[in-house]
Amino acid sequence: MVVEIICVGTEILLGNIVNTNAQYLAEECAGLGLSMYHQTVVGDNAKRLQEALSTALRRSDIVILSGGLGPTEDDLTKETCGLELGISLVEDDHTKKRMEDYFLNSIYKEIPKNNWKQALVLKGSAILDNDNGTAPGMAVKKDGKTIILLPGPPNELIPMFENQVRPLLAKLQPEVIVSQMVKICGIGESQVETQILDLIEKQTNPTIAPYAKTGEVHLRITAKAEHEEAAENLIRPVTEELKKRFGDAIYSTIKDETLEMAIVKQLMQQQVTLATAESCTGGLLAGRITNVPGVSGVYKEGFITYSNQSKETLLCVKESILAQYGAVSEETAKEMAIGGAKAAKTDCCIAVTGLAGPEEGTADKPVGLVYIACHLNGNTVVKELQLKGNRRKVREQAVVKALELLRKCLIQYR
Amino acid sequence: MVVEIICVGTEILLGNIVNTNAQYLAEECAGLGLSMYHQTVVGDNAKRLQEALSTALRRSDIVILSGGLGPTEDDLTKETCGLELGISLVEDDHTKKRMEDYFLNSIYKEIPKNNWKQALVLKGSAILDNDNGTAPGMAVKKDGKTIILLPGPPNELIPMFENQVRPLLAKLQPEVIVSQMVKICGIGESQVETQILDLIEKQTNPTIAPYAKTGEVHLRITAKAEHEEAAENLIRPVTEELKKRFGDAIYSTIKDETLEMAIVKQLMQQQVTLATAESCTGGLLAGRITNVPGVSGVYKEGFITYSNQSKETLLCVKESILAQYGAVSEETAKEMAIGGAKAAKTDCCIAVTGLAGPEEGTADKPVGLVYIACHLNGNTVVKELQLKGNRRKVREQAVVKALELLRKCLIQYR
Repeated sequence: MVVEIICVGTEILLGNIVNTNAQYLAEECAGLGLSMYHQTVVGDNAKRLQEALSTALRRSDIVILSGGLGPTEDDLTKETCGLELGISLVEDDHTKKRMEDYFLNSIYKEIPKNNWKQALVLKGSAILDNDNGTAPGMAVKKDGKTIILLPGPPNELIPMFENQVRPLLAKLQPEVIVSQMVKICGIGESQVETQILDLIEKQTNPTIAPYAKTGEVHLRITAKAEHEEAAENLIRPVTEELKKRFGDAIYSTIKDETLEMAIVKQLMQQQVTLATAESCTGGLLAGRITNVPGVSGVYKEGFITYSNQSKETLLCVKESILAQYGAVSEETAKEMAIGGAKAAKTDCCIAVTGLAGPEEGTADKPVGLVYIACHLNGNTVVKELQLKGNRRKVREQAVVKALELLRKCLIQYR
Repeated sequence: MVVEIICVGTEILLGNIVNTNAQYLAEECAGLGLSMYHQTVVGDNAKRLQEALSTALRRSDIVILSGGLGPTEDDLTKETCGLELGISLVEDDHTKKRMEDYFLNSIYKEIPKNNWKQALVLKGSAILDNDNGTAPGMAVKKDGKTIILLPGPPNELIPMFENQVRPLLAKLQPEVIVSQMVKICGIGESQVETQILDLIEKQTNPTIAPYAKTGEVHLRITAKAEHEEAAENLIRPVTEELKKRFGDAIYSTIKDETLEMAIVKQLMQQQVTLATAESCTGGLLAGRITNVPGVSGVYKEGFITYSNQSKETLLCVKESILAQYGAVSEETAKEMAIGGAKAAKTDCCIAVTGLAGPEEGTADKPVGLVYIACHLNGNTVVKELQLKGNRRKVREQAVVKALELLRKCLIQYR
């Protein structure tokens, strides 16, 4: 089956935002075994949207549209779809009720008048409830084609796809497609690829596709078969082979498990309490760890010690160490980790200090120089990193490297 | 003039990579005053690429293609363009020489045989030298249309556009386009739109376009004119009118200035030092503030007080307050802000405590209940929020609301 994506939004054509929805939807559709040959972006313009939809319906079985479902006059995706498909818009009581509940429980108290438009849906469509906004999605069939309308904001689109669209698309596929993720950290993308070149070269079913993320590589194994069990039987030996090749570098084989989730699980299993001590990452490391629901069972407190003064008072880093080696040094990182665990009375503390730039670098200590340290049950490990890229990229990479080090120490000093 | 983008690459259709080239090219073209109505992605497939090109040439004056210029068999962008345009490929001596130099100075020493393909160019095209790779770009004119071929890797495409394509496109554009951003926080998107409906309805030149972000609305005013000064003269009265209508809710009129950048600027101007004290946001607030280069001048330290114990020891929140009102309460938020400023010896501390979910909510204190408090020069302001959405969304919104409150207090207690 052939699927095609149309993203609607003048903000994409103006380059105000990166079209991450297209990437997300493409990856998900590939995972479902659907073929995609086209992605299109059009602005908030009825004529051009209708043309794009008409073209897409001619060449694809499934058309997924994102964006243009909101309350403003610019939002005209469902109106245009209705026009092209010859389907009228009707008010949906269920959606109207949900909107009332949403607004009356919000700070608004009253419903802005233009918002009622969002209760209008394509007649006969399956309504996709929006748990993170007010505009519902829709799925409608016409002349053997399936048209799916999704809201533009990723935090609304992703859960809607996950919970409501994926099951719907899976049903359209005659064969069962099963995917298995193998998530690796601490090894670069090209190194991972080199290690599995022989597997990739001879692959037909299942297939292995690598996806690179900051500091991580995800391998998706996908098998097609008549039923789920047969597909799983095809996947199992490949997963086992990858486990043999990558060992501890694999942090998870669960689709929705992030690196921080895997680490928090490990902390809980090993009953290790955690603190963080951050300088250049300024809270981003703690922010990622506290993404995990229920983390309060193991994560106790975090210190953002931006000034030298705060490194001394909060983490008891000795003034002499700061004076002799500087705030960005192996010695300071080590003291931060030890001091953080002591101050927070935790078993473990992970510390980061570095130069995120763009200024403040020197020949000796260039921008991108970062030290990470992990103190766990009396052992302290420090690592020096020389990271590439702008301030945002250096900070992001430092966070992943710190998580990686924490994970390694949890395995090593188990 | 109308420009259109065609990105070529099966890896985009599979969702292996995010199409950042499209966003980059779109933003650059918008900045040059070119109108863009379509973006297309096709895979490494000659037939579909030719169709896409043919469609693009029918409706646009300029077509920019990215990807498919490399040495492999999959790379067929210039071959397909040649076919569609009726232009043959010829070997380019200048490019051949550059390739020889590139390879002989590289680790390869010898030139891989299939690489010679990259010295073939569209006859009569302007060659765009590639300083970061071996595949040259090309610009060719045919029947009044301009077709530009760029390599896919962003680190090759961006400098090539910057240095060679932008000057070329600027020459094609008879008018000058100037944009002005007006960035608003603390007012919802539909409320902003309602307040400028009269301006939007009568607009022709300049135009106003609203863009919603979490907790923010950006208005982009765009004017076309014969020269820059004339365009700026068209924009000025609109900016003034928006300033009248939205007043202090406008945090910036600078394109690249984020909310946190505007706040850090304010802190610096008012010489106010800052600390943060976070519970449910777990470092994300500090993480955003420390996005700003040079923030160490005003931001001193942050406390992530996830456990009750840490609220007591680090922020001196009284045990009796925690026992009587709970960790998520107006009283605790207030004490956190006061205690944070005292502990960090700063003029100001912004504090967040709340229930991000998904569990831990009760009838009295549902998930999404968040208290933010700002202590500044002896004054303490507390605000209760009831936020919607999943854990990530609650945390994100809490961060923006906290930044907003900080900004308001800086204005109020200036």
